[in-house]
Amino acid sequence: MFRCHLLIVPLLFLSQVRCEVFTALADLQELLNTEAVLIHSLENYIRAEELKIDLLKRYADIYNKQHNKATEDVESYVANPLNAYTLVKRMTTDWQEVESLITTDVSKDYMANISYAKENMKFPTDEDLNGAAAAVIRLQDTYRLDTASLARGELNGVKYSSELTAADCFELGRQSYNNGDFYHTLLWMREADERLSREQNKTVDKGEILEYLAFSTYKEGNINLALDLTNKLLEMVPTHERAKGNKVYYEEEIQKGSYKKKGDDETDDIITNEGVTIVRKYIVLSLQWETVW
Amino acid sequence: MFRCHLLIVPLLFLSQVRCEVFTALADLQELLNTEAVLIHSLENYIRAEELKIDLLKRYADIYNKQHNKATEDVESYVANPLNAYTLVKRMTTDWQEVESLITTDVSKDYMANISYAKENMKFPTDEDLNGAAAAVIRLQDTYRLDTASLARGELNGVKYSSELTAADCFELGRQSYNNGDFYHTLLWMREADERLSREQNKTVDKGEILEYLAFSTYKEGNINLALDLTNKLLEMVPTHERAKGNKVYYEEEIQKGSYKKKGDDETDDIITNEGVTIVRKYIVLSLQWETVW
Repeated sequence: MFRCHLLIVPLLFLSQVRCEVFTALADLQELLNTEAVLIHSLENYIRAEELKIDLLKRYADIYNKQHNKATEDVESYVANPLNAYTLVKRMTTDWQEVESLITTDVSKDYMANISYAKENMKFPTDEDLNGAAAAVIRLQDTYRLDTASLARGELNGVKYSSELTAADCFELGRQSYNNGDFYHTLLWMREADERLSREQNKTVDKGEILEYLAFSTYKEGNINLALDLTNKLLEMVPTHERAKGNKVYYEEEIQKGSYKKKGDDETDDIITNEGVTIVRKYIVLSLQWETVW
Repeated sequence: MFRCHLLIVPLLFLSQVRCEVFTALADLQELLNTEAVLIHSLENYIRAEELKIDLLKRYADIYNKQHNKATEDVESYVANPLNAYTLVKRMTTDWQEVESLITTDVSKDYMANISYAKENMKFPTDEDLNGAAAAVIRLQDTYRLDTASLARGELNGVKYSSELTAADCFELGRQSYNNGDFYHTLLWMREADERLSREQNKTVDKGEILEYLAFSTYKEGNINLALDLTNKLLEMVPTHERAKGNKVYYEEEIQKGSYKKKGDDETDDIITNEGVTIVRKYIVLSLQWETVW
């Protein structure tokens, strides 16, 4: 594992940033070497799969042509010994080749290469991802950077890096959530939602964003908005079991008018009714592990 | 298993053909229903694999763009916390999705459909293929049909069926070989070779044709030509173990001048030297089973 916290940023106005660990630059450079190997393996795998698919398409083409010809006049087709022979051949020796192609696991060799690279080269862990995300959040806080500008790769109106995708923003929100930082979860999930609405090739699932948004909103004390977001999620996915349980819980809390922000009072987690149990289960799970409730 | 011998051909001049079994037409019509299911499954499988590959190509594209940007100036790239974060993310959560896609076995469901069709619908066996090929050979003999014309789907200059591919001709040769009919093996292997030379998308391996040609030539009594064909095969595949053994055997037999056509004298198979043992081994194997020597 390598450590990746806040890095030295080559921007004058960032020179005073305090970093816990300064050693990650060389590690990150090495990561790029590993990435080159991964990309190479991925491209070779794609080429191999395409060759296999092209061959199968040729078979499908031959099968279709002959089959269509046969169905024009079935009786006279099968009555001709040459046709009868080619039909039987298509379904015996030829079809054995088709099946053998279909069941050929092209991925095996490439996955072996990838595993070798992961074991023998520098490769980041989930902890490194959490550290790299925390570095971005710290940068944002230190310079009070606007989330949308930062997502555009801008610092004080100057573009320093590529734009983030909705998935990149989502992951920053998810990492903040895992760190119990619901304020930044909200900022980055909203940005993810905003970016997602403009993406042609969607990089993340809207439902997942809504789940994080609803629970972080609830944690930040706005139970009515949490309920609205949960209803929105249920409109999209009516069978969403967790959302159904949470909806019941939020409605009951609003009716009772007894809602207190979670975490203010530990006894809040001592809950009895079914809807609440579901929420509690996922709160506990989410704190124990990275599971999305 | 269904039976498929010589069929009733709806051509006036074939009306006197004697058939052992006349019942195969309905079976062949049912085979076409099975073939339709197989083609449908194959096409759906191809579509599913293409979707997977398209998604992986999008990943590869994103990886390449970001990686190329990084390698333009590695130090300043990794020193930027946003870049550091997206690099680590590409190699953790994103890469997990890439690996998950690569290792997704798309074939499973389609193979299940195919197996179901094969078990529950009419499906031909290797014996049926042998019967269907024998019907073609019998047709050829009965009407003394020229191999090249028959391969073009012509009877007396009139086109009655699709042209055969080199692989179709090869299979007719292979089935004749399995029936110990080396005369027709030679006819159809020569036709396969001729057609192969004109095929843009090769349907059969030239080396395999040469193997059958050489041994059938030897069985038909022309040991010098069998040696020439074996040498031709060795030019193409110098490491071909069976061809190397047979070359030694043919050369020794020619030197001794003691060659007699196999089958003329049963004692010919009682052989002692190493080269001969190899040939004998494959003769025995080929008679016992469909193995190509």
